[in-house]
Formats: sequence, structure tokens, C-alpha cells
Amino acid sequence: MKTLIKNSHILTMDEKRTEYSEGYLIIEDRIILEIGSYDQLIQKEIDFDEVIDGHHTITIPGMINTHTHIGMIPFRSLGDDCPDRLHRVLFPLEIACMTKELAYHSGKYAIAEMQLAGITTFTDMYYFEDALAQATDEMKSRAILGETVVDFPTCDTPIAHGGIDYAKKFIPKWLNHELITPAIAPHAPNTNDPESLKAAAALAEEYGVPMTMHIAEMDYEMNHFSEKYNATPIAFLQSIGVLSPRLIAAHCIHLSDQDLQILKKEGVGVAHCIGANTKSAKGIARIKDMLELSIPVGLGTDGPSSGNTLDLFTQMKLVANFHKTNLHDRSIFPAKEIVAMATIEGAKVLNMANQIGSLEVGKRADIVLVETTSVNMFPIFDAYAALVYSANASNVQDAFINGTSVVRNKKLVNNDLSALRSNLAAEMTFFSKKAKELT
Amino acid sequence: MKTLIKNSHILTMDEKRTEYSEGYLIIEDRIILEIGSYDQLIQKEIDFDEVIDGHHTITIPGMINTHTHIGMIPFRSLGDDCPDRLHRVLFPLEIACMTKELAYHSGKYAIAEMQLAGITTFTDMYYFEDALAQATDEMKSRAILGETVVDFPTCDTPIAHGGIDYAKKFIPKWLNHELITPAIAPHAPNTNDPESLKAAAALAEEYGVPMTMHIAEMDYEMNHFSEKYNATPIAFLQSIGVLSPRLIAAHCIHLSDQDLQILKKEGVGVAHCIGANTKSAKGIARIKDMLELSIPVGLGTDGPSSGNTLDLFTQMKLVANFHKTNLHDRSIFPAKEIVAMATIEGAKVLNMANQIGSLEVGKRADIVLVETTSVNMFPIFDAYAALVYSANASNVQDAFINGTSVVRNKKLVNNDLSALRSNLAAEMTFFSKKAKELT
Repeated sequence: MKTLIKNSHILTMDEKRTEYSEGYLIIEDRIILEIGSYDQLIQKEIDFDEVIDGHHTITIPGMINTHTHIGMIPFRSLGDDCPDRLHRVLFPLEIACMTKELAYHSGKYAIAEMQLAGITTFTDMYYFEDALAQATDEMKSRAILGETVVDFPTCDTPIAHGGIDYAKKFIPKWLNHELITPAIAPHAPNTNDPESLKAAAALAEEYGVPMTMHIAEMDYEMNHFSEKYNATPIAFLQSIGVLSPRLIAAHCIHLSDQDLQILKKEGVGVAHCIGANTKSAKGIARIKDMLELSIPVGLGTDGPSSGNTLDLFTQMKLVANFHKTNLHDRSIFPAKEIVAMATIEGAKVLNMANQIGSLEVGKRADIVLVETTSVNMFPIFDAYAALVYSANASNVQDAFINGTSVVRNKKLVNNDLSALRSNLAAEMTFFSKKAKELT
Repeated sequence: MKTLIKNSHILTMDEKRTEYSEGYLIIEDRIILEIGSYDQLIQKEIDFDEVIDGHHTITIPGMINTHTHIGMIPFRSLGDDCPDRLHRVLFPLEIACMTKELAYHSGKYAIAEMQLAGITTFTDMYYFEDALAQATDEMKSRAILGETVVDFPTCDTPIAHGGIDYAKKFIPKWLNHELITPAIAPHAPNTNDPESLKAAAALAEEYGVPMTMHIAEMDYEMNHFSEKYNATPIAFLQSIGVLSPRLIAAHCIHLSDQDLQILKKEGVGVAHCIGANTKSAKGIARIKDMLELSIPVGLGTDGPSSGNTLDLFTQMKLVANFHKTNLHDRSIFPAKEIVAMATIEGAKVLNMANQIGSLEVGKRADIVLVETTSVNMFPIFDAYAALVYSANASNVQDAFINGTSVVRNKKLVNNDLSALRSNLAAEMTFFSKKAKELT
């Protein structure tokens, strides 16, 4: 299968940030075969199985969501403004109502939402990851899927830290999948004892897979480590030997200067979830300082009840406005850097930059076309600025993952959105009843 | 003409914030004739000229954009991350390239963008307001249109403060228009001398029309008044007698406690432009303190080069996240309050709450239907939260202004968007050339 995308404004996001204002790109099977200026195209259109006219589009690498919880679509718009919602709403509902079937249908819906928003790769942390892997496989997205480990019984295990046993079966099962990388996901440093954190890290090491964890997110987490160990969570994690380049550290809101040095030394990448962090009033992570130390930073939507949308356009705008305001400098975090965080820098966080994150010959064909005919997209003097400041998820026109077309003309190619929604809604009956009782 | 909207989840935004989960609303000519729970509807569908099935929609009052510059579409995505862009890019380009024709076509396009985003009323401040009034009249939007007064020659006048003479013709010409309220708009306290500020206020008083002005927005504005008058801009404006309930004060980022008391005493309403203020790193206005003093606060997109989108969904999300984070409280500024700022509170800022801003019998039929079938809008446990945290402008399905349907099924009813864009693009040739030279 050979596809030509012609006549699009291509932002490659390669190291030189090469742009082709009228570019072409050839996909052969899973791979980007050629990319360049359209006037340099030698082959004839008749040589392709398909030709996509990209006039009035911006082509970018598929966006990379470094942190989410795809099983949590049922929680969206529930108790958004409620203090300590995690303990008052989310945990109780998860334990009472989350099932394998509900997670599966939520997963499919969430992946559809991400594909329609131009996200082609995501890192997930949730329960029933085996069902979520099934959903991911069926939806043909690229993902790192981490089974949660936490120190209390939860919806998919009757014992504390049962996620480790779950992961011991889950990881080998999905280890050689073309698109799925199984992983382990300790919930947070304060919701796991040191032994289970070490066991999780050892399991990740054994199989050569990623680990992901919420870190330095909560005020009470910071207090816990300060009081119990006279340390920060990051310093504590280093002391027990669980930091490594395998780790995708979500949030990292509250970091000391020493923490930054530790992250750099240990090669940890950060999933920056500005939308979730600021909606919940937790604070603004020190991203500028991280970037200055060359700590990889990608963007994360967080879950659909935290974010609340599974798109990175919302996040890119928030990154710009929050960091500019926080640092009192409108020129900092220019649009081009923010688009990089949503693409190639996210790939670095996931240790996948050799495969995805930029449009380069030989890389996997994860490609997104954003249309510029909608009312919010005119004029465009700077394509990066248009993506960060003007665009929203509804401007995504086409998406390819691993060379396969998953979104065409703003519709899912292989799935019917309303069927995905009805299936999820049908599975939500008991959940919705309990949710209404709780809020 | 009698239209029935049935079966929609209606948020009236009346004083009690009455909701009808399955509601109906009857429009007769320009007015809301009835509103209520659908099971209380007595009339038969055959009695209506048109019936709109609002299943899977949320109906809200038309949104109110309290501050924008509709002539500035050509500037979008131009120098977004450039320090002191106002003096380096915007002012020079305006003086060199802005024409009556360009303003007119930009205005039509900007109004289309707002209608498609569910904004039915806006307050504008720009040049060539007579051409913009023409555009507004043709597009059938409701607006307050303020001719700019500034202490240097600009695109529509060869003399400093020439806007006052312009307004003396402009205001009486449009005074009795059904949808348009002409106004005067001194650019800012530091870009006008006291005499012209007083002359502008006197003109507004003479005709009983609004005045609008950027106030307490810029660091250098604050320094100017501190150094020259040992006062804040607000205190200075009070001292020369130009504050009144007629004034729509845009931005008001840097306010002292005394300034807040002055705004309250003088009855001034505030246009809060969180997106523009934070993208330009200017700061976060003290909205919580204003609301505690019952100072009316509405939302503003600011101009399309500042905001950068002309929709209030973007602004609502930013209001939530910025103020929650700034005050370190996730429960503050709950979604319902933010929807109120985008509707009824905005109407109060414009002194139009007797006509618009809520869905109540006898009020003007400015009505918006937001669809809930797009992927980002499921599930909905709280309709306000869905609007603030999940929705974007592309979810707006229908809009009525003064009883007239202007958007139907996400398309303009009386206008062709691509024609509006081509007309604007054709007018932008010289502007675009100059813009590329400058940036």
C-alpha cells in the first residue's frame, strides 16, 4: 500500500524543524518513504494506491499523549469542582462500579476521541489493562499500557498491590505486539510501599518495558515524604533505586532544585499535564527549568475526568498561557516549542523517538492533517501559532497510525462513533446510578 | 414567525438558574414567548412555523463577548510570541495598511466566527466603526460598537483624538438601530489626554450610549500614572469624572483595593479577557474580589490576534483553570458561575440584562443550542461542567439572534463562510506583504 499526501504545509518536527510550505509525503505500508517539497516529487500520481490532496491542511507528526486513563470516560463531568474529588468520588466509584467490560468500552471510546483529535500514541495507567490492550488493538492505536499498582484492593484485584501479579501475566502476553507496549504503573510514591515500588521497577527491568507513575502531584504526598523521610518523593524514589530512563513521571508539579538534578541524572522523562494540574488547583510544574536541563518533557491530557478532553490542542494553549504568565514573559514558550512538546519531545519521554514523533524517512507513518478551512484557522502567518493558539481538536481532518488510516475527513475509518457511545452508555447503567447518589 | 425548540436540556441562566432537563422554548418574532418543561407544553406542533428537535443539545442564552476588535482578523497568528508586539507589529501595521474596506471584510468574518461559536452579542472597539456597523447590520448580530479615540493619527483619522469627531457623526447615525448600539472607545487612559477622555465621556453622556476603554492592562500604563499623578489609572479616571455605569472597562488586570471600591461605587462593569491577558503574560485580574463586591464581570475574547479565537468556550476553560490555580482552590469558580459570566453577567456589564443574557419570557430571543453528540461531550452528569471543561466552539449547532436563525446545523444561515474568507483574503494583499516584512 503506497499513499501520497501532496500539497500540504508540512511541519516535520525533525531536529532542524524543517518545514515544507507545499510539501509531499509518501507512506509505504507502515513507514514514511519520502518527504519533501512538492515540486521535487518525481513519481507520478498513478504510481500510488491513494493520493490525498492536502491543500488547506497542516501536516504534523501524530500527537503523543504521555499520560492518560482511558478507562475513565464514565467519570467525565462528575464532581469537577468538588474538593478532594479523588477520595470522595473517583476511588469509591472505581471500587464499587468499575468492571472489565466498562473499562473496555470506555477504552475504545477514549481511543476514538484521541484519534479524532490527532493523538496517535498514548501512555495509559489504569486497571483491567488487559481489556484496555484488547481495545487498543482493535482501535489500531499505538500505546504504552501500564497496569496500576496501589496499596489497597481495587476493581481488578482483591488484594493490596495486586497489580504486580496482574502485570506479571499482562506484560508477557502483549510484549511482542506491533503497536502495544505493556508496562507497569505504580499509582504514586505515597500509595505504594517501598517494596512494591521496587518490585514494580524490577518487573519493568526484567521485561525491558516502561514504568509510569504519578509523582510530586499532591500536597499531601509532599507532606507525607517530608514528615516520614525528610525527603521529597523524587529523592525518596532515587534512594530506593526505582528511577531510570524507563520511568515516565506524570505531573512532577512540586520539584526542588535537587529533584531536577536527580531527574536529569537518572534520565527520567516527564508527562506534563497542565490542564489537569491547574483545573485542580495543584500548581504549575517547573517546565522551563526541566527543559534547560534537557529533561524530556511531553504533554498529557490526564484522564477524561481530570483534563477533561482527550486532545492536546487544549493542553498546548494552556501550556503557552500558564508558563508565559507564570514567568511574566510573552516570548517564552513560543508556539514551535509547544508543538515539539506535543510530538517529538513526547516521543523522547516514551523512549520512542527513533520510531515516532517527527516526520522523517524511515520512521513509522503516524501522521495527522489539520484542516485550515474552518473559521478559526484564518489567516495563517505562522503554522505553529495557528496550531497552538487557534486550532482545536475539531480541526483534525485525517490521521494515520503505523501507515493505517484511522481518521478520514473527521470521521473514524474503521469504527462508528455512535455505536462506540451506545455500547459504553449501555455498560454505564449501574455506574451512573451510583455516581448520582455520590454527587 | 413562531418557532418551537423542544426536548433540549435548557439552562435558563435566570436568577434562580432554573434548568429544564427536557425543556421547550417558544420564539415569537424577536421574543421568547414561553419556556418550560416539555411535558407542560400545551400547544400542538402544528401551530408552529418551525419545530427544532433539541434532543442531544444543551440550550443556553446567546453568549456575550464583552470586548473584542473585529477589524483585526488579518493580524491573527502574526508575531504571537513577540515582546511589545503592540508597538512593534500592531500599531505600525494598522497605520500603514488598515482601510475601511479591510476593516469591513474583517468585521464580517469575525462576526461569522462569533456566531458559529454561539456569541450573539459583542462589544467592539476599533477604527472605521461605521463600516463595522454596516458589517454588523448585514450579519444581523447584536453589538455595541465603539469608535477608538487615541492621541496619535491613525488609519481612520489624520489627527490625534480624531475619533471624537468621527464618533460625533457615527453615534447619531446608528442610534436607533434595532441591534446596534453605537459607542465611543478611548483606547486607554495613558494614550489619551484628560481633555479627550472627558470629551469622550461627555459625548457618551449626551447620547446616552456606552463608553469602553482598556484600563489597567499594561505595566507601562501603571508606571505612567504612578509617576505622573501618583495614582492608579482607575483613581485618575475617577478624579477627572469619567467613570460611570456607562463604562465597559476592559482588562482591569492591575487593581488596588481602593480601585475595586471605586469601580463598585461608580458602577463600572469589567470585561475580563483572561486568554489575551495570560498569553501576553500581563497577569490575572482580581475577578474573585470583584464578584465579592458585586462588580459586574463578563468575559471577552479580545481581538483575534490577542485571544486568538473569537469564542467564549476557550475563555471559560481558561477562567476556571487560572483562577482555581491562582487561588489554590479547585472548588472556586464552579462551572455554573463561569457560564453565568459568559451570559447574564456579561449582559449586566453591557447594561442590557433587561433584554438579553438569560432565557426568560419577554426577553429577546438570543439563543444557542450546543450539541452533545460529538465525541468530547459524553457523558454529561453536569451540563455546566460539560460547557466549561469539555465543549469547544465547534459544538455550537444553532444560534438565534433577536429571533432570527443565524446558525443552523453548524453552518451560517444567510452567509457563505468561504465567500466571506475569499473577500477578506482579497482585501489583505497589501497587508500581508507588509506583515511579512515586519515579522
